[in-house]
Amino acid sequence: MRKRPAASPRTQVRRHPERADYDRTSIDAILDEALICHIGFVVEEVPWVMPTMYARMGDILYVHGSPVSRMLRAAAGGADVCITVTLLDGLVLARSVFHHSMNYRSVVLVGRPQDVTETEEKMAAFKALVDHVVPGRWEDSRQPTTKELKATKVLRLDIREASCKLRSGGPEDPSADVELPIWAGVIPVTNQVGDPIPSLDLPSGVELPAYISHYRRPSRLQRTPSSE
Amino acid sequence: MRKRPAASPRTQVRRHPERADYDRTSIDAILDEALICHIGFVVEEVPWVMPTMYARMGDILYVHGSPVSRMLRAAAGGADVCITVTLLDGLVLARSVFHHSMNYRSVVLVGRPQDVTETEEKMAAFKALVDHVVPGRWEDSRQPTTKELKATKVLRLDIREASCKLRSGGPEDPSADVELPIWAGVIPVTNQVGDPIPSLDLPSGVELPAYISHYRRPSRLQRTPSSE
Repeated sequence: MRKRPAASPRTQVRRHPERADYDRTSIDAILDEALICHIGFVVEEVPWVMPTMYARMGDILYVHGSPVSRMLRAAAGGADVCITVTLLDGLVLARSVFHHSMNYRSVVLVGRPQDVTETEEKMAAFKALVDHVVPGRWEDSRQPTTKELKATKVLRLDIREASCKLRSGGPEDPSADVELPIWAGVIPVTNQVGDPIPSLDLPSGVELPAYISHYRRPSRLQRTPSSE
Repeated sequence: MRKRPAASPRTQVRRHPERADYDRTSIDAILDEALICHIGFVVEEVPWVMPTMYARMGDILYVHGSPVSRMLRAAAGGADVCITVTLLDGLVLARSVFHHSMNYRSVVLVGRPQDVTETEEKMAAFKALVDHVVPGRWEDSRQPTTKELKATKVLRLDIREASCKLRSGGPEDPSADVELPIWAGVIPVTNQVGDPIPSLDLPSGVELPAYISHYRRPSRLQRTPSSE
C-alpha cells in the first residue's frame, strides 16, 4: 500500500520547487541510507543544531541521548524540532561561478517529539538505532540492562510533516557559456566505508562477523553518465 | 600568532565535556575540511535546519543563497543562527549496545549574521565559496556578472562563539564486557571523491585540469590502529 505523502504547508519547498518530492518512498530511502541527522531545537530563542544518530521504524523516527542533554530536554518539552538528513552526492562544476552547485538528497522533517517511556518501545527503538547503523549488530551485541535503559532517553517523532529535496545531473550553464574552454562536470562524492579496525583489547579468537566484513550502506543513487 | 579561543558561555559543551575543544586551530581545520554545513534559524518559533555551502575566510564564515530564500531572510533579520559542521569518521562497535558510538569531529557556531552588501567583499566571498569546494576553481571559471552578483545574497558570520567536539579511538566497554565473544572495533567512514564525470555538452578538446584530477579534501584526521 502506498503511504500518504508527507507534505504539509510548512514543509512545502519554496526554493527550487522542481527539486522537491513529498513521496514517502523517496523520503524513507534517504532516511534509511544516511547515518546521522542534524536536529534543530530552540532554547531561549536561539536555534541549536546538533548532529546525532537516528533510526526510522515505519512512520516514526527515533533519536536518543542522555536524559540530561539540553537537546533532548528541549526536544521533549512540547516544542517543534526540525530533523534534517543530508546525503552529498557530488560537486557540480559549471563554467560560470554562478551555476556551481552540489548534487544532494535531503529530508527535512518537523514536528513535536514525544518521550518514549514504555520499556518495550524503548527496546525496539534501541534495536532500530543499532541496526540502522549496522544491520545485524543488535542480535550480536550485549543487550541493554535496566540501568542502561534508564540512562538513555528516547524520543519519537512521527514522520508526518516532511519533504525531500534532490539535485542530480550535470551543470546547467547558459548556452552562451557552453563553448567556453572551461572543464565542466561532476566530481562524485560518497560516504566510503573502510576496513574494520579491531579493538586493541579484542581477545584472540573472536572472528569478524560477516555482517561487518560485508558491510555497505544501502544506496538508491544511480550513477550513470547521463544522470550526472 | 595564536588566535583567541572561540569559547563563550553558550557554546560551552555540556555533554561529554572531555570531547570539547575551543581552539581555533581545531575549529578551523574542521570548517576547512567539510563541504557542507547545516544552518539553523527560527521562523515563528519553529527551528529550521537546512544544508548549505559555506566558506571560511579568516575569522568569518560566509553562506550564500537566493535573496528570496526564507533561510537567508530569516538569518539576515538580526536573530541568532546556528551553523553546524560535522565530519563522520567511524562507526564504533562496542560489545554492549549501550556503548556503541560514532567517531566524529563537529563545530557548532552561533551568532547574528550580517548581510554583505559591498561588492568587493561579496566577490571575495564568492571566491572563498568556490575555492573552498575545489581550490583553484575560481581562477578557471567564468566570473560573476553584475546581474549574477545581485541575484545572490551573501551573509557573513563572525567566528566568535564556537566550539568543536571530537570523538576518536575504539569502543570503551566496561571491563566485564571485554571478554565476551563479540567482535568490537571501528568501521572507518570517509567522504570519498570519485573520478570526475565530464558534462555531456563538454566541447572536445577541453582537458581535465590538474586541480580537478588531483582533487582531494584536506584532512587532519590521523588514522592509526592505536587511535582507532
